[in-house]
Amino acid sequence: MAGENPGSGTSHGADGVGESALLARMLPHLRTGPSVEVGPGDDAAVVRLPSPRLVVTTDTLVEGHDFLLHATSPRWIGHKAAVQNLADVAAMGARPVALVVAVSAPASTPAAVFEELTASLAARAEDDGAHVVGGDLGRAEQLILTVTAMGALPEDQAPVVRSGARPGDVLALGSPHLGRSAAGLALVLAGRVRTRETRVVLEGITDPDAADLVRWHDAPEPDLSLGWTVGRTAHAMMDLSDGLIRDGGRLAAASDATLDLEGGALRGDVDALASLADELGEDPWQWVLHGGEEHAMLAAFAPGEVPHGFRPIGRVLPPTAAGPGVLLDGNPVAGEGFDHFG
Amino acid sequence: MAGENPGSGTSHGADGVGESALLARMLPHLRTGPSVEVGPGDDAAVVRLPSPRLVVTTDTLVEGHDFLLHATSPRWIGHKAAVQNLADVAAMGARPVALVVAVSAPASTPAAVFEELTASLAARAEDDGAHVVGGDLGRAEQLILTVTAMGALPEDQAPVVRSGARPGDVLALGSPHLGRSAAGLALVLAGRVRTRETRVVLEGITDPDAADLVRWHDAPEPDLSLGWTVGRTAHAMMDLSDGLIRDGGRLAAASDATLDLEGGALRGDVDALASLADELGEDPWQWVLHGGEEHAMLAAFAPGEVPHGFRPIGRVLPPTAAGPGVLLDGNPVAGEGFDHFG
Repeated sequence: MAGENPGSGTSHGADGVGESALLARMLPHLRTGPSVEVGPGDDAAVVRLPSPRLVVTTDTLVEGHDFLLHATSPRWIGHKAAVQNLADVAAMGARPVALVVAVSAPASTPAAVFEELTASLAARAEDDGAHVVGGDLGRAEQLILTVTAMGALPEDQAPVVRSGARPGDVLALGSPHLGRSAAGLALVLAGRVRTRETRVVLEGITDPDAADLVRWHDAPEPDLSLGWTVGRTAHAMMDLSDGLIRDGGRLAAASDATLDLEGGALRGDVDALASLADELGEDPWQWVLHGGEEHAMLAAFAPGEVPHGFRPIGRVLPPTAAGPGVLLDGNPVAGEGFDHFG
Repeated sequence: MAGENPGSGTSHGADGVGESALLARMLPHLRTGPSVEVGPGDDAAVVRLPSPRLVVTTDTLVEGHDFLLHATSPRWIGHKAAVQNLADVAAMGARPVALVVAVSAPASTPAAVFEELTASLAARAEDDGAHVVGGDLGRAEQLILTVTAMGALPEDQAPVVRSGARPGDVLALGSPHLGRSAAGLALVLAGRVRTRETRVVLEGITDPDAADLVRWHDAPEPDLSLGWTVGRTAHAMMDLSDGLIRDGGRLAAASDATLDLEGGALRGDVDALASLADELGEDPWQWVLHGGEEHAMLAAFAPGEVPHGFRPIGRVLPPTAAGPGVLLDGNPVAGEGFDHFG
């Protein structure tokens, strides 16, 4: 790729290193396995999938929109970029196999940032058995990572799509907690967070769990393996990216159903965040119902068949006269979750 | 994905449309085929590959670095993003099957830009038999597209990597012209180009081919099918992204060989650009030897086995005492091509 910017061929990073030198710091972190026939460094990678039924998803993190550099760390950015993509593969009932990553950044970006992003992305992928097999490096006005994650479905397994929920199903969540990422985000947006490397420094916050919430927001750690293990038996599944109500609405619409959330099942999530919400003057129900970036599995199972690792949080009903949607204890819920262009 | 920016939940695009409305304009352009088991709209796409040997590559175009909006069009940006990724799959000897695209853009970006990008990306992919099966939409300070292209290798076919060139091979190019993209870029960088939709308006240029060169730069149209047809017989192959000398140096290094370019074989390319180069006060040899973004196939074949569609431009020799590298008629070549961080 050549640059349109006349200056781009002569500019230097803060460390004075060029593209080749950056790659030399990044590539050693990409450990491949026996499934990787051709790894980074050629025109494309070649990876042997367990089946020819490719599962693929792509997602981007943009500085200033999806993270603020002063409130996270390059290691967490790489981790989060991995998680949000691995979660989408897992939510189809497939195990991730390979990832590619495109990183664009200002020329002034220290080489260590590229290295830490790469190392953490690769390490988090490997935690779930996947390898980073290729990438692209370029310049932009802010730091941007686009990750594409790939897996495969066995020949005898249907993809677990969003449209399979049936009235009578139990709606279940593959996480013991909900709303933590939103609580962490609230701390960031309130200007209470500074990070030093991967240490969270909080200003004027007494809640002893607050640092963990910021860390969960910056580097969420949902159990994604639920997707390609017990989640395979779900009638419908997705990962929670944009909040329970908004994402639930998508599952409801795809399934032409109503999801009726049980307030009592979410009470523990709300109570766990109540003290911090009180300090910040916020409503913990907002975090639990509308908070995004949890990346936990949301699934509908046949009654009595909710597997270990999932907990019931509601049930699937036929669509109401108003059409498919999400209710809380039978009542409509205000608010719509997050929209990039809304 | 939730946004860190407190304003991002309430801002509006120039057309006042939200994410859902943008998707409603983009998704109808993504026509899928029988290989697409799950298309856009779920957590991930599911695509049946012709074999489980996945070939994958990713590449990014960034406004201000890889294109200037006043000198191209959204249709060409989508086209180019497709070509540069399809070319990398083709250069492995594989036919592209599927693409995913992540688009990030300012909130003020007109909806028509998203729609035209998507339509042209999908159309160009379909020209080579591939489908856009998924994507991601988000905000950034400038327009950014990251495309990931995927294909598959038949079980009985080795990937055509960069490292297979052998002394005695013929170096060949899968394009009748070289340097056109660089000539078009030179016109852009000289400030002579304005586009209106897909019409090129030139200021103070008399060369009758100049508009075609800008168009080639903005929307190159190399014959990529050479990669997965006759290119499969190559000992080594890559696509020309960063210039003949720089990319040739990569192939030479991977193969531990010297590439000796034949000046006479490139004379026609230079002569075709000489008039414009004269007008701009530039050296057409620079465009031919160092110009990037042609995306034509560069390959090494056994002597006497250069297939139709490729033309010989040099030969492969053992490495010199100085190591592997690229020569022109036996002599070293000055200049190094493009480096994003160089």
